[in-house]
Amino acid sequence: MTRSASSGPAFVAVDWGTSSFRAALVGGDGSILAEVAGPDGILKVEGGDFAGTLRRQTGAWLSAMPGLPVLLSGMIGSRNGWVEVPYAATPADPISLAAGILRQTLDGHPLLFVPGLMHVDAHDVPDVMRGEEVQVLGAGLALPDAEMVLPGTHSKWVTVRDGRITGFRTFMTGELYAALKGHTILGRLAEGDAHHADGFAAGVLRGYATPALSHALFTARTLPLTGRLAPEAVASYLSGLLIGAEFSGALAHAEPTLPHVAIGDARLVDLYRTAAALIGLDLHAGPHHAAVDGLVALARALDLLPGAAA
Amino acid sequence: MTRSASSGPAFVAVDWGTSSFRAALVGGDGSILAEVAGPDGILKVEGGDFAGTLRRQTGAWLSAMPGLPVLLSGMIGSRNGWVEVPYAATPADPISLAAGILRQTLDGHPLLFVPGLMHVDAHDVPDVMRGEEVQVLGAGLALPDAEMVLPGTHSKWVTVRDGRITGFRTFMTGELYAALKGHTILGRLAEGDAHHADGFAAGVLRGYATPALSHALFTARTLPLTGRLAPEAVASYLSGLLIGAEFSGALAHAEPTLPHVAIGDARLVDLYRTAAALIGLDLHAGPHHAAVDGLVALARALDLLPGAAA
Repeated sequence: MTRSASSGPAFVAVDWGTSSFRAALVGGDGSILAEVAGPDGILKVEGGDFAGTLRRQTGAWLSAMPGLPVLLSGMIGSRNGWVEVPYAATPADPISLAAGILRQTLDGHPLLFVPGLMHVDAHDVPDVMRGEEVQVLGAGLALPDAEMVLPGTHSKWVTVRDGRITGFRTFMTGELYAALKGHTILGRLAEGDAHHADGFAAGVLRGYATPALSHALFTARTLPLTGRLAPEAVASYLSGLLIGAEFSGALAHAEPTLPHVAIGDARLVDLYRTAAALIGLDLHAGPHHAAVDGLVALARALDLLPGAAA
Repeated sequence: MTRSASSGPAFVAVDWGTSSFRAALVGGDGSILAEVAGPDGILKVEGGDFAGTLRRQTGAWLSAMPGLPVLLSGMIGSRNGWVEVPYAATPADPISLAAGILRQTLDGHPLLFVPGLMHVDAHDVPDVMRGEEVQVLGAGLALPDAEMVLPGTHSKWVTVRDGRITGFRTFMTGELYAALKGHTILGRLAEGDAHHADGFAAGVLRGYATPALSHALFTARTLPLTGRLAPEAVASYLSGLLIGAEFSGALAHAEPTLPHVAIGDARLVDLYRTAAALIGLDLHAGPHHAAVDGLVALARALDLLPGAAA
């Protein structure tokens, strides 16, 4: 097959998470031909009508190209998603993830659900992710040895060696922030959500230095109470505390010689890079299309990209 | 004044917190003559009618004894209470707390509001409490050198030397538990609130051993997900995680030669003693009437107990 023949649409890449839906039409050479995105995360799909959502978002591509495969990663493959795909195990690379794919069919299109990933640590404690593993493998194409952080509701710190995921750890930073901000006295002391640079910095440094998080959190009450922290700085201070504690916990287990890379939501990547600079860590911004890059690598492992074999 | 004359009512002791009201009629020899308790914590008093609540709960005592003083400790002296009493500073004993009392009058009765306590640590970070300091001083009459833990919404670990409070640290254990249980994915995985001994023990040991709390918390998701923790054990596991982390953080700063004593709510004292045994710590149960004992010590410092001078 020639390269020109392979540059037509080869598959649809779908990154379908809890709160967002992103899809790309990918050419046979791995290039992105078109993209759509929307807020139709799996928790927002009414009545579990995932097929209807996929048709609505990508129907123009699917109906124009009968039999076009759809490769789906993220929480869509979880217990609360379309089908539950068993977790693959670390170490993981595109070939081992491809081996765990669960296949279905929709309107004559193969649906290929990518498994999430489970890592069991030295203490026999499991950790899991769904979707981030594809982003990490995508970013690992550019940087095959790195510690990668994916900030978010459940932040992931992932070790990549020779383009394989060898281990990872989750920190509940985003969800803790939301619960503390919305449902404790700390949130009631905060005035507004606007970023406050000094409050954030103070939080990062204290969170990074203090081993006892549930004690350090109380300073988000006592510092404003004693006039040492302005009410409009409390939310950023709290965010900084949690991110600082995340860095402290994650770096204790990181490979010291590897470069550190942040990927994912641009605003969060900026925030984490600011926090990293405060504690003297070089944290680089990773590639933007990591999810699609990872799905392309998977598609290659699945022989869905005939023209890109070279 | 003779002892028999002093055994009549000398003052009313009120321990008035966020969610509960307790009062005792105290005799001139420091004995408890009568007690009342109710759920009228300061957050439940409609329209801030604290005077009405006090009259309703203790009116029979007050109207029978004109001029009888009322000594009040706890959140009633906070910004959200009746009057805001400035914090006293560590080190603190009954005499220094008595010096910070704020006086008002109600129906001819002196109202004596006890200050809360502020401790500023070596890093210039303030910590505060209101009410617990009186309980600690009360317990300190029986054990003047101890590390005392008061488990609760905001657990306090307090160092007592020669009957004086020399320092303390707050852990937001109870409030964190409620926020995580009620408003995160961890709560949605839990089936029921019944105590589960094995789940609690596993949580305590992991929380005590793991420095990164926001990572350890995620195990309350992954362990049930992988069948290693029963859904009905999740709540107790989460509680254990937070209490284990509290012990780890608190013991890192405790005076190793002092006995450890738990005071306060009987159910929580039992739970903390169970946790302590799991990590090899001797945690003794303190006296039951610590709050009244502390208020009696304050009353003595204020010369409200003429017959008890000996």
